[in-house]
Amino acid sequence: MRPSGRAPDQLRSVVIETGATKHAEGSCLIRMGETHVLCTASIEGRTPPWMRNSGLGWVTAEYGMLPRATHTRNRREASVGKISGRTQEIQRLIGRSLRAGTDRVMLGERQITVDCDVLQADGGTRCASITGGWVALRLAAQKLVDAGELKENPITQHVAAVSCGVYEGKPVLDLDYAEDSEAGTDANVVMTGAGGLVEVQGSAEGATFSRAELDTLLNLAEAGIAELVAAQKAAVGG
Amino acid sequence: MRPSGRAPDQLRSVVIETGATKHAEGSCLIRMGETHVLCTASIEGRTPPWMRNSGLGWVTAEYGMLPRATHTRNRREASVGKISGRTQEIQRLIGRSLRAGTDRVMLGERQITVDCDVLQADGGTRCASITGGWVALRLAAQKLVDAGELKENPITQHVAAVSCGVYEGKPVLDLDYAEDSEAGTDANVVMTGAGGLVEVQGSAEGATFSRAELDTLLNLAEAGIAELVAAQKAAVGG
Amino acid sequence: MRPSGRAPDQLRSVVIETGATKHAEGSCLIRMGETHVLCTASIEGRTPPWMRNSGLGWVTAEYGMLPRATHTRNRREASVGKISGRTQEIQRLIGRSLRAGTDRVMLGERQITVDCDVLQADGGTRCASITGGWVALRLAAQKLVDAGELKENPITQHVAAVSCGVYEGKPVLDLDYAEDSEAGTDANVVMTGAGGLVEVQGSAEGATFSRAELDTLLNLAEAGIAELVAAQKAAVGG
Amino acid sequence: MRPSGRAPDQLRSVVIETGATKHAEGSCLIRMGETHVLCTASIEGRTPPWMRNSGLGWVTAEYGMLPRATHTRNRREASVGKISGRTQEIQRLIGRSLRAGTDRVMLGERQITVDCDVLQADGGTRCASITGGWVALRLAAQKLVDAGELKENPITQHVAAVSCGVYEGKPVLDLDYAEDSEAGTDANVVMTGAGGLVEVQGSAEGATFSRAELDTLLNLAEAGIAELVAAQKAAVGG
Amino acid sequence: MRPSGRAPDQLRSVVIETGATKHAEGSCLIRMGETHVLCTASIEGRTPPWMRNSGLGWVTAEYGMLPRATHTRNRREASVGKISGRTQEIQRLIGRSLRAGTDRVMLGERQITVDCDVLQADGGTRCASITGGWVALRLAAQKLVDAGELKENPITQHVAAVSCGVYEGKPVLDLDYAEDSEAGTDANVVMTGAGGLVEVQGSAEGATFSRAELDTLLNLAEAGIAELVAAQKAAVGG
Amino acid sequence: MRPSGRAPDQLRSVVIETGATKHAEGSCLIRMGETHVLCTASIEGRTPPWMRNSGLGWVTAEYGMLPRATHTRNRREASVGKISGRTQEIQRLIGRSLRAGTDRVMLGERQITVDCDVLQADGGTRCASITGGWVALRLAAQKLVDAGELKENPITQHVAAVSCGVYEGKPVLDLDYAEDSEAGTDANVVMTGAGGLVEVQGSAEGATFSRAELDTLLNLAEAGIAELVAAQKAAVGG
Repeated sequence: MRPSGRAPDQLRSVVIETGATKHAEGSCLIRMGETHVLCTASIEGRTPPWMRNSGLGWVTAEYGMLPRATHTRNRREASVGKISGRTQEIQRLIGRSLRAGTDRVMLGERQITVDCDVLQADGGTRCASITGGWVALRLAAQKLVDAGELKENPITQHVAAVSCGVYEGKPVLDLDYAEDSEAGTDANVVMTGAGGLVEVQGSAEGATFSRAELDTLLNLAEAGIAELVAAQKAAVGG
Repeated sequence: MRPSGRAPDQLRSVVIETGATKHAEGSCLIRMGETHVLCTASIEGRTPPWMRNSGLGWVTAEYGMLPRATHTRNRREASVGKISGRTQEIQRLIGRSLRAGTDRVMLGERQITVDCDVLQADGGTRCASITGGWVALRLAAQKLVDAGELKENPITQHVAAVSCGVYEGKPVLDLDYAEDSEAGTDANVVMTGAGGLVEVQGSAEGATFSRAELDTLLNLAEAGIAELVAAQKAAVGG
Repeated sequence: MRPSGRAPDQLRSVVIETGATKHAEGSCLIRMGETHVLCTASIEGRTPPWMRNSGLGWVTAEYGMLPRATHTRNRREASVGKISGRTQEIQRLIGRSLRAGTDRVMLGERQITVDCDVLQADGGTRCASITGGWVALRLAAQKLVDAGELKENPITQHVAAVSCGVYEGKPVLDLDYAEDSEAGTDANVVMTGAGGLVEVQGSAEGATFSRAELDTLLNLAEAGIAELVAAQKAAVGG
Repeated sequence: MRPSGRAPDQLRSVVIETGATKHAEGSCLIRMGETHVLCTASIEGRTPPWMRNSGLGWVTAEYGMLPRATHTRNRREASVGKISGRTQEIQRLIGRSLRAGTDRVMLGERQITVDCDVLQADGGTRCASITGGWVALRLAAQKLVDAGELKENPITQHVAAVSCGVYEGKPVLDLDYAEDSEAGTDANVVMTGAGGLVEVQGSAEGATFSRAELDTLLNLAEAGIAELVAAQKAAVGG
Repeated sequence: MRPSGRAPDQLRSVVIETGATKHAEGSCLIRMGETHVLCTASIEGRTPPWMRNSGLGWVTAEYGMLPRATHTRNRREASVGKISGRTQEIQRLIGRSLRAGTDRVMLGERQITVDCDVLQADGGTRCASITGGWVALRLAAQKLVDAGELKENPITQHVAAVSCGVYEGKPVLDLDYAEDSEAGTDANVVMTGAGGLVEVQGSAEGATFSRAELDTLLNLAEAGIAELVAAQKAAVGG
Repeated sequence: MRPSGRAPDQLRSVVIETGATKHAEGSCLIRMGETHVLCTASIEGRTPPWMRNSGLGWVTAEYGMLPRATHTRNRREASVGKISGRTQEIQRLIGRSLRAGTDRVMLGERQITVDCDVLQADGGTRCASITGGWVALRLAAQKLVDAGELKENPITQHVAAVSCGVYEGKPVLDLDYAEDSEAGTDANVVMTGAGGLVEVQGSAEGATFSRAELDTLLNLAEAGIAELVAAQKAAVGG
């Protein structure tokens, strides 16, 4: 029995509220149950120096967590004076994932920075950031289309992510904090709307896992991501 | 004529939504027009080392702005690796202001940290942080009372803040960004519910100002703060 | 009775020694009683990148305190690895104040950096820095006139500053450390030679203050600043 | 055809030289072809503060690369002043992997720090670090047994890692730099000697990958890791 | 012919003004010609953690240069965020030199920190810092004697320093900036009042130097240091 | 009697293995007894900004020590976030020394960076770094000659270094750690193959030293360096 009473293959309720902030070119507030992430996408007219004149665009991501997004207050990374390893790992993952859905030639020499800031955390913040970050990214790119700067939206594939893991011996989808902190093996899976894998990160916590267990987790993730992509489509209109 | 069409002595619409995040002991989302600040108050059972065994409590504040809270994206202070002078100045001001409403003996050897994170900025973020931060602080302290740890709420006085300034030659209350970026003299004023001044920070931008002008601005602020204190009372129930 | 035996409206003795260091374009050592600040102004032929080609000049300030300028030794900010919030707040205040006396069009695309380093502290270091920093700035700008690079001195208005506060219930001018550490309300006031207000920063320490008290403090400051401007005139010859 | 002429399922030559440095409690120099990593394990008599009195030991890892381990010189992280996201991600992975082979109760309240420093890089440095780091760790723990401080070696399971990926459309094992920089999908796989999965990190570079492709890569990895574990056994005598 | 017109073995004028700042336990302003260094010594009642309970005292030094102590303005190390290699090298040298004159057993478990801040630089700042720093140190230690905390002054030996070098082919004593920037070989020499060598740092700039040249420089330094020790004696009364 | 049984004027065994790493333009692993330093030289086609268009080349050095190169593990400077004073002092010394053997006009507008990384430390790491660093530097420059980019090797003079000191009252050459940690006076001496002095750094540890003692140490160093230069010649073929 999951603490939330959900079925093993049941996502938390997903709410994606677009236009969550007025300045960003694209934005949404994504709520995966009690995990709330504000995602904004900001367009800049040029790419980082090391890729200039390549004709390619760039998508990058940053991730943050408000100090009291969690059960107990964490020190602000700005006051610590450096970004933690965990944060860096997450923002690199988000960036790679979003680029997998982007046609960088079509984007042209522009950079879009996706900021994912966790307002409230209850497990699965990196996955929510990818799913919500994609919505912000797609909306920002659409602005370029609407303004006539691009012919087609260069965010050509949906990209969404979900966690899954073994909780009290049973594979379950979309871990919340109560499950995550007790789980054995867990995995974060990123896929496109077309069903291709972008990233699989499975990790034993305690006991190791078998190929069969990994397969079960990937089955759960595949179904969950299909639902998340449907929610993305509803949010951005296709 | 103000860009927003407001009368010179008219505040923006003020909305204070308490309980904005589930983990913090006290929290609110304050909206002063298009300026939105998420305020959380976190209780810790001990004070900083340099004040231990004094019998006194401590209230401190931190301030942050999401990278795309503004018209163009700002670099994240965590990735710059240090807190800007502006941020430090603001968080010191918020902390001093909130302590002015706190009976530190009554609070006892506890620390309450108030985090004010700007989700969307349209001028007046430091004042909104003080007004909203006070609500989060008061609610957190109330938890201590409700839990029987304190007999009375040690946040004994309301504290609220507002900006005012000279826009196109006329003194106006509660500057939004469009006004703030054009204003001559502006002032941030912090007062208690009882009408005492906590902090007056008046600054010439361009031309200097006279004692008479300062008086006019303080009159505007006094009336505005009375309204803000009323909104605080509505939010926390007294 | 003030610890120093001064009358309530009496400044400490003010000594401004120009040419205090041989390399700087302008410099002075200002002594406000036992507070000693070495002020130097350094001219650079270009402004910061973000204001290039605007035709405007820039004046900025930095502030530092030697480790043993105070009763007990403070850690050197260079070895802490960052500038404290207090220092940043002060150097921003000095910069704003000095720019208020500068005709930036007349200065042209040059930057003058005013360094204020406290050799010995006895309260009021930020005010002494403004008053002395102005002298260094004016002398540096005069070098540009003398060299034929400018027709007139672009430091067109005198700018000086003084603190005042309520000590043992009585408003007094120019707080020394013994008073400052005990004072209730205190205020730092910056004015031009023509009597315009540049900056008013009043702050309650403990009890709040009233509009009437603020007025009394501003009266004291106004008279004190007039004396300081006279000392500046004596130092720079007008 | 692989640039090195290896068969698709062929590891590079593996040489593990134990006792590579005289001060460390355990050490080895591992050479996976032209990738050379010096691994040392250092025992400390106490664990980090946050786990004291838990009765559990701790194993952690740090990773570095000499500036000219690579084709072109990289800036030293010590002179940049911070550890890159890539480095942090790698050292977190090494630490988690090595802990998976450790019986932390048996280790008792001690910390073993494994340093993996890349002297020469030709792809696969993180996997070589795990495989070699395990050898250093096991040897260090053996010292505790030999000294009578522990009854049995708490490094109870072998842990080794290998990369695999799709190069010119074909799945291959143990990518060298020439392959890695051209590969589509690649995966890093960490397993125990008993064949349990510890960590699977698969990542699309360009096109996405299918479940079937992931399976093929995992098959390659499984066989490769068995060979690496054999090399570990030869190095540490079981 | 030296730019200053001095004879080859002639020091610049040496002025040591004790009591240069009122808070420090010992202080002086040393002027070696146009090089001016403010030296303060601060006593702390305990030594660094790593030497506690050894019965020994500790003397350490820090060195700084005001931004405009030099011909052109240097960035403040506090705003750069780290101490330069040059500064660290100098402060380590000052500390070692001063400890050579200290009886650490006699000092007991106390730390004295000597701060040397260059107000104006014209070459030879590290040597002036040692010579002046010793005066501040001795005076501070004397306070402990005067207060009855120590029986005898633990600063048992005079320590002074001077530079020398080859300028336009001729060995000269006490280089000023004009000479230093053109000098071939130069050396910094630290000696005790009893004539023992504490530190010799000779360095070729351009051509190498011979043993004979080093001897000539050491002869010059020996005579110069004897004069400096005489000045120290005059300053501290023995 | 020396702990190692060496005669007072006897170097440790010196082994210089060139081509120690495949990517660097020049490299060697130098072993002075149990002190092992990996030295690499990296050529870059341009000099630092501040010396562009001078026609001169630049040679610089960086120094590092692996965390467990020593008896007990040291924190990695990259994770401390800054380079220690000791490291900076050493790398400045190596750079100056190597430049003394370089004809910077002949080198032309190129920079060669020599990295000296201590794999195992047993005293004398800075001297081994200079001696080995020179070999790497010379080999890298030879590559430029071999490629026809330079006519002659601009590393025109051999440069080597050795430590010496007073151990148990007797002057000895090439201190190992056991001696170094007990030595009174010690000195690091850098000389060219032609016998010119490049750098002499003598330092009292405890008692001061006399001119006669310094002479004895320099005699020892001179003979030792001649042997080291012979080893360099053997390594680079002249």
